[in-house]
Amino acid sequence: MESWSIPHLDIDILVKNIFKVDLQKGDLLELKHEQTYLASIDHGLVGEFFDFAKDYEICASLFTPGTVIPYKKIDKHLKNENMRYEALTDTSIFVIPRKNNELASFSSEMDILIDRIYDFFISYSRELALLRTVLSAEYYIEFFILIYCTSNCSVIEKNFITVDLLSRVTGCTRQYANKVVYRLEVEGVVIKKVGKIYILNKDILLQRIDKDLFKRYYKPCCITA
Amino acid sequence: MESWSIPHLDIDILVKNIFKVDLQKGDLLELKHEQTYLASIDHGLVGEFFDFAKDYEICASLFTPGTVIPYKKIDKHLKNENMRYEALTDTSIFVIPRKNNELASFSSEMDILIDRIYDFFISYSRELALLRTVLSAEYYIEFFILIYCTSNCSVIEKNFITVDLLSRVTGCTRQYANKVVYRLEVEGVVIKKVGKIYILNKDILLQRIDKDLFKRYYKPCCITA
Repeated sequence: MESWSIPHLDIDILVKNIFKVDLQKGDLLELKHEQTYLASIDHGLVGEFFDFAKDYEICASLFTPGTVIPYKKIDKHLKNENMRYEALTDTSIFVIPRKNNELASFSSEMDILIDRIYDFFISYSRELALLRTVLSAEYYIEFFILIYCTSNCSVIEKNFITVDLLSRVTGCTRQYANKVVYRLEVEGVVIKKVGKIYILNKDILLQRIDKDLFKRYYKPCCITA
Repeated sequence: MESWSIPHLDIDILVKNIFKVDLQKGDLLELKHEQTYLASIDHGLVGEFFDFAKDYEICASLFTPGTVIPYKKIDKHLKNENMRYEALTDTSIFVIPRKNNELASFSSEMDILIDRIYDFFISYSRELALLRTVLSAEYYIEFFILIYCTSNCSVIEKNFITVDLLSRVTGCTRQYANKVVYRLEVEGVVIKKVGKIYILNKDILLQRIDKDLFKRYYKPCCITA
């Protein structure tokens, strides 16, 4: 994304109005679209879940430290009451509020910026979901471990994922995700410590995953999940 | 979507500038984002395809008569060179062009309208892709036949789908889609005539498919696929 210039004075006002939300594991992030520009994860992890029907739930996106949840002004018909943002671990979030008279002077610039972040986020998320449909569950798990755990975000020293999250992201059972992770452990690709899966040999994964796919969907840290 | 009012004079100008594109089966619809507001399918069928990598292709959306393809002004980083709009049968399309000085007077209203259509389209498409991940291939095929073939668009007298399209939309093999369709034929749910699959007994499908899913994703004709 190209650089975006907001006047220094406006940034000062913006920063002054930021507030912090602390969530415990399992808490929901419930911000109103009409009152929020964006939420930025300071530390922790937030998942976007769709609960389509009984027993049909999927984790559509993961927001890690440094990534941003855009709150676009949206029409009612777009809202899905079965969607939620849930803290997957103790999480701290910075919120830039929308309703503020001081911010009115550059609200349209902010709306354009949010619009662009939202467009990026939703396209990226849609393409990952489509990709999940064409790739086998096994291939997608390897692909997802690669793009998720190699995020270049400086905030995170070393990214890990869990079997539970892998199954919620890919839509397959925990048993199946566990089987794939176990194979990757035996092959020396990943290492599991107290339930946390870390990449041990990135090169093996890079050789297996289509280069264009990795290049296109490599997690663009500090923009969105 | 709530009603949208564009002044009559502007609509006259708009209508005057509309042009028609005729495509033969297999032709690509290649309109430039910066020169197009939207394309509306008059007759025929257009598929949106993602070609992620060799042998990894999926049909992400289907645009039937009366539906609209929004051409939002987008950033370069959003563009996916592996995406294409392809005519799946002989197709005729009306195009509302963007670059026209006469239209400048209400271009911002048009942009807002396109933005809303685009938001609806991309959210709908993303949720269907996520749904495909949580539902079994068999359930999704039944669900898709129901929402696709019962479109209430008056332009279409009777909607049909083919095994080929079902496999391209769901990401499963033709053999598998064929097996499911054969079972549905035996059960009297669908009927196949010269390769075209029509719904014969909608009630059976309605009983099987989760009511909330049908209600939410029932194909909103004349808005988007």
